Amino acid sequence: MLDVYTQIASIPIGYNHPALMKIMMNPHNLSSFVNRPALGMLPPRMFPEKLLDGLISVAPKGLKRVQTMACGSCSNENAYKAIFIWYRTKQRGHSNPTPEESATSVINQAPGCPDLSILSFMGGFHGRTLGCLSTTHTKAIQKLDVPSFDWPAAPFPKLRYPLAQYERENAQEEKRCLEEVEDLIVKWEKKGKPVAGIVIEPIQAEGGDNYASFDFFRKLRAIAKKHGSAFLVDEVQTGGGSTGLFWAHQHWGLDDPADMVTFSKKLLIGGYFYKDEFEPDKPMRIFNTWMGDPAKNMFLTEVLKVIREENLLEQVKRTGHVMLNGLYELQARYPHLLSKARGLGTFCAIDVKDEDTRNKLILKARNKGVVLGGCGNQSIRFRPALVFKEHHAQLFLNIFNDALADMK
Amino acid sequence: MLDVYTQIASIPIGYNHPALMKIMMNPHNLSSFVNRPALGMLPPRMFPEKLLDGLISVAPKGLKRVQTMACGSCSNENAYKAIFIWYRTKQRGHSNPTPEESATSVINQAPGCPDLSILSFMGGFHGRTLGCLSTTHTKAIQKLDVPSFDWPAAPFPKLRYPLAQYERENAQEEKRCLEEVEDLIVKWEKKGKPVAGIVIEPIQAEGGDNYASFDFFRKLRAIAKKHGSAFLVDEVQTGGGSTGLFWAHQHWGLDDPADMVTFSKKLLIGGYFYKDEFEPDKPMRIFNTWMGDPAKNMFLTEVLKVIREENLLEQVKRTGHVMLNGLYELQARYPHLLSKARGLGTFCAIDVKDEDTRNKLILKARNKGVVLGGCGNQSIRFRPALVFKEHHAQLFLNIFNDALADMK
Repeated sequence: MLDVYTQIASIPIGYNHPALMKIMMNPHNLSSFVNRPALGMLPPRMFPEKLLDGLISVAPKGLKRVQTMACGSCSNENAYKAIFIWYRTKQRGHSNPTPEESATSVINQAPGCPDLSILSFMGGFHGRTLGCLSTTHTKAIQKLDVPSFDWPAAPFPKLRYPLAQYERENAQEEKRCLEEVEDLIVKWEKKGKPVAGIVIEPIQAEGGDNYASFDFFRKLRAIAKKHGSAFLVDEVQTGGGSTGLFWAHQHWGLDDPADMVTFSKKLLIGGYFYKDEFEPDKPMRIFNTWMGDPAKNMFLTEVLKVIREENLLEQVKRTGHVMLNGLYELQARYPHLLSKARGLGTFCAIDVKDEDTRNKLILKARNKGVVLGGCGNQSIRFRPALVFKEHHAQLFLNIFNDALADMK
Repeated sequence: MLDVYTQIASIPIGYNHPALMKIMMNPHNLSSFVNRPALGMLPPRMFPEKLLDGLISVAPKGLKRVQTMACGSCSNENAYKAIFIWYRTKQRGHSNPTPEESATSVINQAPGCPDLSILSFMGGFHGRTLGCLSTTHTKAIQKLDVPSFDWPAAPFPKLRYPLAQYERENAQEEKRCLEEVEDLIVKWEKKGKPVAGIVIEPIQAEGGDNYASFDFFRKLRAIAKKHGSAFLVDEVQTGGGSTGLFWAHQHWGLDDPADMVTFSKKLLIGGYFYKDEFEPDKPMRIFNTWMGDPAKNMFLTEVLKVIREENLLEQVKRTGHVMLNGLYELQARYPHLLSKARGLGTFCAIDVKDEDTRNKLILKARNKGVVLGGCGNQSIRFRPALVFKEHHAQLFLNIFNDALADMK
C-alpha cells in the first residue's frame, strides 16, 4: 500500500524508519518506555535538556516556552486555559484572586469561572473534547447533542478558484470575514463574554483544506492585538514540515509572532509553544498526571534529526511541486470530476464533484493500493509522510489517474 | 527510594518489571511502538482480539463494551459526550436529528447543542479539560479564571471518624447529601438544563481520600435510574486493583450495574466501559486521531497477566491490612499530628493536623527515602504499586514513624 493519508497525517517519516527502530533497540531507552512518569511532578533526569534537542529546537519565532501534552485536543484545551488565565490576570492587574473569586470558582460560577470566550471560524476543527468542540465547526455529527459554550464563530473566507482569476473577489471576501471578526468581538464583549483569544488553523484541514491568503492571517493577527485577544495558531495538522516549512504559519511572515502555537500528530507528542506572558502566575494551574510522554519526545528528537540530516523540508517542496502539478493535470483531464487543486508543499487537496463520488473514488484508490482520506464535504486531502519522494508522487498520480479513469 | 505515590498512582506493577521489559525486547513488537495508528480508522491487525485478552477481560459486571482513549481527561470528556448523545436520542425517540438541530449544532446553539448537564460532587476530581473541569470541585487554583458550564455540584458526605462511633451521624449526613442530589436534579431540570448523567469517584482521591458508605453509592445509583440520568463511575485513580478488587465500585454490590466506568493511570491506556445503549447511533460521533495507543494496551495485557499469575489482588489485601493497622498505630502514637487513618486495600490515607505540617512531613519522608503525595487540604495519600508487599509496608511504616518522630 502507498499511504497518502498516514494515520490522519500523524506519521512524520514513514513506517518503521530505521532511526526510530534503533531508538527502540537501544537497551538504555527501555526503561523510558516501560516507566511513564508524571512529567509535571517527577520529570526524568535531564528532561529539560532533552527538550532543547527536541521541541525547543523547532520553537516558532518569538515563542521561547513549551508545554507538553498527550494529544491535540488536550493541547488546545490547555492552551485555551492558559489564555483565560492570562486574560483574567491582565484584567485584574495582579495575580491574587479575591476570596469571592476563589469561592465561586469551585462551584462553576462567576466571577471565579468568568464568562470568557474563544473566537473560532466556521469550518475550523480544533478537537472534540468539550472546550475544543466549542471552537470546532465542521460537521454537525461531530457536535450534535453535546452542550457547547456560547462562543462566537466567524466566517472563514470562501475563496474562488483559480485564485489568479478571482483576485479582487477573494480580497473582498477576506475583508468581509475580517470585518465580521471585529463585529463579533464587539458583540461578545457587549454580551459580557469577552473574546480572550482567537484560534485558527493555517489551512482548515478537517473542514475541507480551506485556504486564506497570508495577508488575511497577518491582518487577523493585528485585529487580535488591537482588541487585546490572544492569537493562537492551531498547527496540529499543519505543523511538522508538510507545507515545506516546519510550521505552516511561517509562510505568513508575521511581524508580531503568534502568542501560542499548538501541535501534536506528526510531532508525536502534543503541546503548545507560548510567549513568556502566557506562563501562568502560579504552579499547578496547567497540570495533569502524564502531561505527555517522554518516550514520544525521544522519538520526536530522532525525527527532527532525520528531517535535518535528510533535508526533508526541501524534499517536501520538490515532491509538493510534482504533486500539485500532477493534480492540475488531472483536473484538466477530468474537469467533470475534479476541481480546485490546491496545496502548499505536499499538503495538497482536490475537490470531487460531490460527496458520494468522492467516497467512491477514495474506495477505488484503496482497492488499487493507495490510502487516501476525505475532508470537508467533497474534498480529498493528501497527507504523505515527509519521506515521500518525487517518484512516490508520480506513482500515486498514476494510480489516482487509473482510479479516475474507472469512474467514467 | 521507596515509592508510595507511584507517579500519581499510575505505575501498576512497579518500575522496570521484567514482564514489561520483555515486551520491549521482543523484536515482533517493535513496529507497534514505532508506528502509532489512528485506532478509530485503521486499527492494527487483530486489535479487537487483543482487547479480549486485555481490557475486555477486566470489564466490570454488566458492561460489555469498551472505548479506548489516551488519558483520564479524554476518557471522561468522551464518556460525557456518549451520555449526552444517549440522553438526546432517548428524548428524541429516534436517532434522526431535525434540520434545525443539525444547523444549530455547528454554531454552538440549541437545540443542536442542548443545555444538558452532568451532576458531580464537591471535592470530586474528574480532570482538567473544560468539560471535565466543570465536574471537578477540589482546589480553586485548578478552576480559577476558566469558564465553566453551569452544572450542579452536590455535597459529598463528610464522614466523622472513627466510623464505628459516628454511625448514626454519618448515616444522616449521607441521607442529607442524597436528598440534595435529588433536589439539584429537579432544580436543574426546571432551569432547562436537565441532568443527563451523574459522575462520582468511589473514593474522592485528589479531593482528600473521602469515603462514603457502600450503601450511599447503591442509593445514588437508584436515584440516577429514577431520574433517567446515566450513572458514571470514575475509576481513573481507584481502578486497577489497589483497593483489593480490580474495580473499587465492585465493593458496593450493585444490583443494577453502573452505566459507564472510566479508567486510565494504572491501566496505562485510558477509556471507558459502557452498556450497550451508550453505543452512539452513528459512527464517528466519538472519535479522534489516536483514540489511545495499542502499545499501551500491549503493556496492559501483560500487567493483567502478572496480576493474575502473581495473585496481586490478594497481595494488595494482605499488604493493605499491614498498612492500615500500622497507620492506626501511628495515629495512636502521634494523636497531635495524625487522625482519620482510612483505607481499602493499599489505597490508604491519613490526615495531618494542618496543610503546612502535612507538606513538611511529606518533605521529611522524601529526605528519608520515601515518596509520598498529598491530597485534599491536609491528607497524605498512599498509592503503592500492586507489587508492594508486607515487608515494603513495614519498611514504609518505620520510615514514616521516623519522619513523624522528627516533627515533634
